[in-house]
Amino acid sequence: MTKIAIIGFGVVGSGVAEVFYKNRQSIEKKAGRELDIKYIVDVRSLEGTVWADKAGTYEQALADPEVGVMIETIGGLTPAYDFSKRALLAGKHVITSNKELVAAHGAELLGIAKENNVNYLFEASVGGGIPIIHPLYQCLGAGEVEEIAGILNGTTNFIMTRMFRDKMSFEQALGLAQDNGYAERNPAADVEGTDACRKICILASIAFGSHVYPDNIHTEGIAALTAEDVAAAASAGYVIKLIGRAKKTEKGLMVMVSPALISQESQLANVSDVFNGILVRSSDTGDVVFYGRGAGKLPTAAAVISDLVDAMKEGGHIDSLGWEDSGRSNVADWRDDVTRMMFRTSGLGRTEIQRIFGTVEPIQGAAQEERAFLTEPVSGRQTEEWIRLAKAAGAEVRSAIRVLEY
Amino acid sequence: MTKIAIIGFGVVGSGVAEVFYKNRQSIEKKAGRELDIKYIVDVRSLEGTVWADKAGTYEQALADPEVGVMIETIGGLTPAYDFSKRALLAGKHVITSNKELVAAHGAELLGIAKENNVNYLFEASVGGGIPIIHPLYQCLGAGEVEEIAGILNGTTNFIMTRMFRDKMSFEQALGLAQDNGYAERNPAADVEGTDACRKICILASIAFGSHVYPDNIHTEGIAALTAEDVAAAASAGYVIKLIGRAKKTEKGLMVMVSPALISQESQLANVSDVFNGILVRSSDTGDVVFYGRGAGKLPTAAAVISDLVDAMKEGGHIDSLGWEDSGRSNVADWRDDVTRMMFRTSGLGRTEIQRIFGTVEPIQGAAQEERAFLTEPVSGRQTEEWIRLAKAAGAEVRSAIRVLEY
Repeated sequence: MTKIAIIGFGVVGSGVAEVFYKNRQSIEKKAGRELDIKYIVDVRSLEGTVWADKAGTYEQALADPEVGVMIETIGGLTPAYDFSKRALLAGKHVITSNKELVAAHGAELLGIAKENNVNYLFEASVGGGIPIIHPLYQCLGAGEVEEIAGILNGTTNFIMTRMFRDKMSFEQALGLAQDNGYAERNPAADVEGTDACRKICILASIAFGSHVYPDNIHTEGIAALTAEDVAAAASAGYVIKLIGRAKKTEKGLMVMVSPALISQESQLANVSDVFNGILVRSSDTGDVVFYGRGAGKLPTAAAVISDLVDAMKEGGHIDSLGWEDSGRSNVADWRDDVTRMMFRTSGLGRTEIQRIFGTVEPIQGAAQEERAFLTEPVSGRQTEEWIRLAKAAGAEVRSAIRVLEY
Repeated sequence: MTKIAIIGFGVVGSGVAEVFYKNRQSIEKKAGRELDIKYIVDVRSLEGTVWADKAGTYEQALADPEVGVMIETIGGLTPAYDFSKRALLAGKHVITSNKELVAAHGAELLGIAKENNVNYLFEASVGGGIPIIHPLYQCLGAGEVEEIAGILNGTTNFIMTRMFRDKMSFEQALGLAQDNGYAERNPAADVEGTDACRKICILASIAFGSHVYPDNIHTEGIAALTAEDVAAAASAGYVIKLIGRAKKTEKGLMVMVSPALISQESQLANVSDVFNGILVRSSDTGDVVFYGRGAGKLPTAAAVISDLVDAMKEGGHIDSLGWEDSGRSNVADWRDDVTRMMFRTSGLGRTEIQRIFGTVEPIQGAAQEERAFLTEPVSGRQTEEWIRLAKAAGAEVRSAIRVLEY
């Protein structure tokens, strides 16, 4: 019998307890041993709840040799980092949904797990109930992953779906997301791309074997997107999505989060509302896409439980999950990234556009004084230069959005 | 060092050798041991090829204690069944892409593998390079799978994509598939649904733990589909796909292969050309969809290699993959399956339609003398009765196609 401690009993933590007891028999069968939850640790009192008899402290759980697994569902860095580190050092498996902590300290915590022959697992940190972490380090066993791109944040995808389908403005769509409980009253982490950035950093670290730090990554949010951008993209056969992406290049790992035009034919274009979709590209397998509910109590809890089963089945450390620390030198300069661009400008005639932007493909249907067009592939550096030139010519550059091929 | 024998050196077998030597270093790292291919067995001579020095016989490979893994890429039942069984009995792992064999004898071969503490693995048998077998038995660790539905055959999906997008007839689209090398000159196994049936049987056996035999499964192919069916479905907001599906019901496992209307909004609707998409529904996780290239030399070979890594990492038998034999009593009568239906009829007025089919939702835009409509949910049994009644009233029933909600 292995005992479990759940540290942090909010939405995800309570979901884990619920899913565990609902499926306990099948979980124990898959795990190959008897399991029970012995401690539930939370800053709020559990008195008067069905969980009251399991209430305990972190220090109790840490000191208890019966506890083989800690499930960290606190979120944030403090005290989750300290709690996780000490549990691993004490030879306990740690399973988490905490993307902020994995993105900030994953290499270190995985290293400590390895030294202590236990596991630090975090399937729930990316893509909710979609199995993506595990397939990345386990199922795609042959060739090297070349590129990963995903719609990784359900809140922003909900907002953009409303802008695209229902012609809402950004503000209207954000309001609806807040009314539905998808967006926080302070939606900054979603809207500014921070959440998507943490997730693509975790996926990139696994796929490429070297820790990618979020504060090293060029991240653009969706707050500047307008209904006019969406309309121009649609005229050209595209939707706009917030994409986190990572690929190997000669100059290092190119990792970025930004809104991007995606062909309406793409498997990612059809990922709507709060769903997530993650594309993994490798030379042998081609493109594989994983799609599902990217958040929510039960999907996230189910992902935690799948890690629990894995840790129990494996017993010791799973060697295939882990990456080196990188010293932050592993990431390429985002200005070297080359993509096509969509521009919306006013105050420029056809000749001036050609002079500044080279050969372009005009998009029909823009407002009278505006010109929207797609460029040839261009670096971020060159894009900045084009914008400077356009402004110097007295023009307004209303938007500049990347075009991605997935 | 573990030695490998490849038995059957056609498209997949030679792909495995190619992918192995291209990625050998990374494969050995993931597998945690040195690996090499010692024997290649084929009815054709390897003389004059780069593989000539590895040419051998099955009996040599079987008798060689250095050989720890046999990769069976012969296809069909004979001699693959005998070869696989004897290899497992001799304590060698067997890895295969042979869906016909797994669907016919999976329970027995998995049982023998277990008794001999080795593995019988077949990630490549369904969905080509898409990791689907492994996630089904490993990554979706918490709740029970309730339902699986998939576009499992790339050839028929290519044909239907051409019928839908390019308004080709079935015959034109089949011809194009043959010209592109996607369809055999004798396309029966694809077109009649046999291939999709084997694949859904394998997925159902894993998910529900009891062997589902293909010859027990109601299977409808796509040869009767017409451009008019596709047009009527499109008018109502649907596409038509060949769907293999399996779910738990009170009367047993409901497993079926048939063309079906799928909402254009569905994640499966957008699976085009030779791609596959597989939806796994469970109460906790919701719907998860796996998408990718469902066939082809390198994707299939990559799936074989991922099994190779798994078998080597695990060493002994992987207990979570396996199912009971069922005595064929596990499958429900397909006539008890309840879905909405789309009918196209001629010779019936509105009143007669209502009398026979109950409340229906008319589809606009059919030819003059024809009426197309969607019914309420109805059993297969009742559908047969409706068709009998319509014919008795002197009408022609041009098509009757299920409507599925995914």
